[in-house]
Amino acid sequence: MTNSSQEFVQHIAKRAEDFPKWYTDVILKTDMVDYSDVRGCMVIKPYGYGVWELIQAEMDRRFKETGHENAYFPLFIPESLLIKEAEHVEGFAPEVAWVTHGGNEKLTERLAIRPTSETVIGSMYAKWIQSYRDLPVLMNQWCNVVRWEKSTRPFLRTSEFLWQEGHTAHATFEEAQEETMRMLDVYKEFAENVLAIPVITGRKSEKEKFAGAYATYTMEAMMQDGKALQLGTSHNMADNFAKGYDIQYLSKEGKLEYCNTTSWGSSTRMIGGLIMVHGDDRGLVLPPKVAPIQAVILPVAQHKPGVLEKAQELFKELQADCIRVKIDSSDQSPGWKFNQWEMKGVPLRIEIGPRDIEKDQVVVVRRDTLEKQSLPMAGLNRAIKDMLNDIQRGLYEKAYKLRESRTVDAHNFEELNEGVQNGFVRAMWCKETECELAIKEKTGGATTRCIPFEQKELGTICAHCGKKAKAMTYFAKAY
Amino acid sequence: MTNSSQEFVQHIAKRAEDFPKWYTDVILKTDMVDYSDVRGCMVIKPYGYGVWELIQAEMDRRFKETGHENAYFPLFIPESLLIKEAEHVEGFAPEVAWVTHGGNEKLTERLAIRPTSETVIGSMYAKWIQSYRDLPVLMNQWCNVVRWEKSTRPFLRTSEFLWQEGHTAHATFEEAQEETMRMLDVYKEFAENVLAIPVITGRKSEKEKFAGAYATYTMEAMMQDGKALQLGTSHNMADNFAKGYDIQYLSKEGKLEYCNTTSWGSSTRMIGGLIMVHGDDRGLVLPPKVAPIQAVILPVAQHKPGVLEKAQELFKELQADCIRVKIDSSDQSPGWKFNQWEMKGVPLRIEIGPRDIEKDQVVVVRRDTLEKQSLPMAGLNRAIKDMLNDIQRGLYEKAYKLRESRTVDAHNFEELNEGVQNGFVRAMWCKETECELAIKEKTGGATTRCIPFEQKELGTICAHCGKKAKAMTYFAKAY
Repeated sequence: MTNSSQEFVQHIAKRAEDFPKWYTDVILKTDMVDYSDVRGCMVIKPYGYGVWELIQAEMDRRFKETGHENAYFPLFIPESLLIKEAEHVEGFAPEVAWVTHGGNEKLTERLAIRPTSETVIGSMYAKWIQSYRDLPVLMNQWCNVVRWEKSTRPFLRTSEFLWQEGHTAHATFEEAQEETMRMLDVYKEFAENVLAIPVITGRKSEKEKFAGAYATYTMEAMMQDGKALQLGTSHNMADNFAKGYDIQYLSKEGKLEYCNTTSWGSSTRMIGGLIMVHGDDRGLVLPPKVAPIQAVILPVAQHKPGVLEKAQELFKELQADCIRVKIDSSDQSPGWKFNQWEMKGVPLRIEIGPRDIEKDQVVVVRRDTLEKQSLPMAGLNRAIKDMLNDIQRGLYEKAYKLRESRTVDAHNFEELNEGVQNGFVRAMWCKETECELAIKEKTGGATTRCIPFEQKELGTICAHCGKKAKAMTYFAKAY
Repeated sequence: MTNSSQEFVQHIAKRAEDFPKWYTDVILKTDMVDYSDVRGCMVIKPYGYGVWELIQAEMDRRFKETGHENAYFPLFIPESLLIKEAEHVEGFAPEVAWVTHGGNEKLTERLAIRPTSETVIGSMYAKWIQSYRDLPVLMNQWCNVVRWEKSTRPFLRTSEFLWQEGHTAHATFEEAQEETMRMLDVYKEFAENVLAIPVITGRKSEKEKFAGAYATYTMEAMMQDGKALQLGTSHNMADNFAKGYDIQYLSKEGKLEYCNTTSWGSSTRMIGGLIMVHGDDRGLVLPPKVAPIQAVILPVAQHKPGVLEKAQELFKELQADCIRVKIDSSDQSPGWKFNQWEMKGVPLRIEIGPRDIEKDQVVVVRRDTLEKQSLPMAGLNRAIKDMLNDIQRGLYEKAYKLRESRTVDAHNFEELNEGVQNGFVRAMWCKETECELAIKEKTGGATTRCIPFEQKELGTICAHCGKKAKAMTYFAKAY
C-alpha cells in the first residue's frame, strides 16, 4: 500500500484521450477497488466501501422515513421457485449462477444464487399476507446479488455486486403505482442532493423494462464521455408476480384478490457513476456528502515546534463538529501529499504551518476548483462547512451544465445518429421494438434510455422510421 | 400478519417443559424470523432484522474505534484457492456449497460459496502487502456466509447466516496475539454491556479450534436450559495462512518475512443467544440497547377526547429524546395489546388514559419484572431512560446469577457428568483430545467450551482420565 503518488498521477490516462482507461486507472490507483481471483468479481477496498457506507446511510434513512423496514431473505432460490414467473425467468436465466452440490452431496434440486429476489420474497409474501389489513407490506433488503456477466468493469458491471432491493405489496394497482413513483422520487432526490448527479426520470420502453414488470421507471445520468448510466430503477409489477406466486388477500368485501407488487433497486454501480460524473485528470472528485474524508489537514514544516500540536487541535475541533477529517503527518513530502489527496478526491485540503499559526489562519484548497485561500481560525468550522456545501452544489451545477451542453433535439435519423455519438438525444419515437433495435444497430449501440416525464413536442413522426410518433424519448449509448 | 396474540401466547410452550419448542414458538410468533422454501435457510423478518441492525451499529462503532475499516470481498472462492491451507480446507470442505454452472455454461473450475473468507482475503493481502510500512492491515466485512448444515435452527445454525469477519495482518506473532485479545475483549464488552449476556472467555482446545488457526479464543454464554452457546471467536493464525497464501513483507532490515494474521467473527447467532438468555414464558424479553422498540405507548379509552392527542404528544417528546418508541392506537382490545407487546419483549409499556391525563401522569409497566407504577409527566423522559438503564443492568445480573447457580466445580467424572446435565462444569483436564472425545461420548454430548483465562486450582489430575492435569476447563453441552 505504499505508493509513490506522483508516479501514479503520471499514470492516470487523460479523460479526453481514453476515458475507459482513465476510469480504470482512477479506481485502482485511489484504492477504491481491486480485481479479485474470481473472474468478474471485485474487491471493494476500504476507501470505496467508505463511500458505499455513506450512500447506504443516506438511502436507508430515506427508506425508513417513507415507511419501509429492512429484512433479509435467502441467497438461494430453488429452480422450481425461480421459474414460476415465465417472463422473469426468461430474462434472468442466462445470468444465473447455479449451486449443484452441498458438502459432498449432489442436490436433488439445483439452487440459483439470487440475481434479484422477487421470487423468493414473493413466495414469503404469499404466506404472510392474508387480509387487506396486512397491506401494504413495505420491505427492503441490503445484500449481494450475482449475475453471471461475460464482460465486466468494477462498480459498473460485475458478476457479484452489492445493492438494495425494495419489495412492496399493495391492495390495488393505483397504490402500487403510487409507491413505484414515490421510490423513484426518493432515488432522484438522493442522486441529485447526495451524489450531486442530475438525472432524467421516465419510463423504460417495453424492450428495456424489467423482466416480468408491468412498467419500469428509471433515472438516467450522463457520464463525462456523453454515455448514459442507469442509476436506479423502480418497477410496478401490477399483479404479474402476485399471480405467479399466489400473493392474495381477502378484501374488505370478503373477496379473494391478487396483490399488486413493486420492486426498486440501486447498487454499488452508483459509485462508478459518481466517479465518471465528477472525476478529472488528477483523479477522483468526491461530493462532500459521500466523501469518507471531507477535509485533510496537512501540517507544513511539521518538525517545527507547535505545528503538529496546532494541527491536532484543529483536527479535534473539526471532528467534534461532525466534519469527516483526517490529518496526514506522515513523513512523505508535501508534494507527494498534495498529489495523493487530490487524486483521492478529498474535497478540502487544509494546510497549516508556522507562518499560518503566527497569523492565526490556515490555507484551504478546494479540490473542485483548486482555488487556494487563507481563512482565519476564528469561525473556521462554519467556513469549512459552507465551503463543503458550496462544493456539493457546484459539482451538481457543473454536471448539469455538461449534460445540457451535450443533449440535443433530433428531428430525423441523421441528427439522432450524430447526437448519440456525443451525448443524449431527445427525439420523437413510435415506441416499436423493431424500430428501437434498428436504431441500436445503425448507431453502433444507442438505446432508448427512457420516455421522460417531462415531454416536449418535437414533431408528430418517429425520427427514425417516420411512422406516427407516440412519445418523445431519450436515446444514448449506455454503460 | 393479523394475529390474535392471546391465542398465540397460549401456544408458546413453557420453558421448563420443552425449551427447544419454547424457542421456536417465540421466534416464529414474535415475527423475528420465518422458515424459507430453501432447506436450512431462514428469512429474517423486520423485527428480527431490527435487532441485527442495532447489534451491527454497536459493534461497527467498536471496530472503527479500534482502527478497523470495512471492505467487501467476493462471495466466491475458486476451489484451487480454497485448498491452499490444508487444515482449513479439511475443516470446511464438508460444509461447502459449490457453484458449478454460470448462465448456461459449466465452469472450468467450481467455486465455493464462502464459509468464511480467510482464503480470499489472504490472497488479496498477499498482493497488497509489500513492506513493513503497510502493516498492520486491519479490515472487517459484514456479509453472508454459507455452511451446508444437516440439521438447522433459526439464528443458531442455518445454512446461510449473516456475520462480520475481521481479518488483520501484522509483522509479528506478538502483535497478532495482541490483536486477537483486543478483539475478544471488544466482543466481551459488547456481549455484557449491549446484549446483557455475561460470558466466559478463554482458549479453545486443539480439537475445538478454528481449522487452520494457531489458537482460537472464544466467549461462551449459558442459555436458560444450562447449555452453552459460543457467541464469538477470535483466532490467532500465526503464519499458517501467510505461508499458505504467500503473505510476505520486507522488514525494516530488508528481510522477506511472513506476516502473522488474525480473524474474528460473530453472527446472527447472537440473536438466538439473547432470546435464550432473557426470554420468559410470555415471550421475548429484549435488552433495551438492542430493542427495536424500547417503549410502546398504549392509549387507554382512546375514543375519549384528548387521549390520542396526549399520547401523540408523549410519543414525540420521547422520540425527540432518542428513545425508540411506538404508539399502538390500533382497534385491538387492550388485553390483546398487552399480550402482543409483552410477547414481543418491548422493555416498557406506557399506558395513558383519561384518568392519567387528569392526574398529569402515565402508568409504566416493566417487561422484565412486570412491575407497574405511576409516573408524573414532569421529568418523564429522564425517568424512562433511567428505567431502561435499570432493565439493561437487571437483565445482565439475572443472567449472571443464573449462570453462577448452574455452574459447578467437579473433581471426578461422576461430578462432571452430573454437572453437564444441568449447566457448566469447571474441572481439571489433561488437554488430550482422546480424553475430550471420551467425555463427550460418556456424557451424551458435553464438550470442552474453553480453558478460561481465569484459572482456579481444583486439583492436579484430570477429572476424567486421572492423568496429570494441565488446565482448569469449562465443560458443557452446547448449541
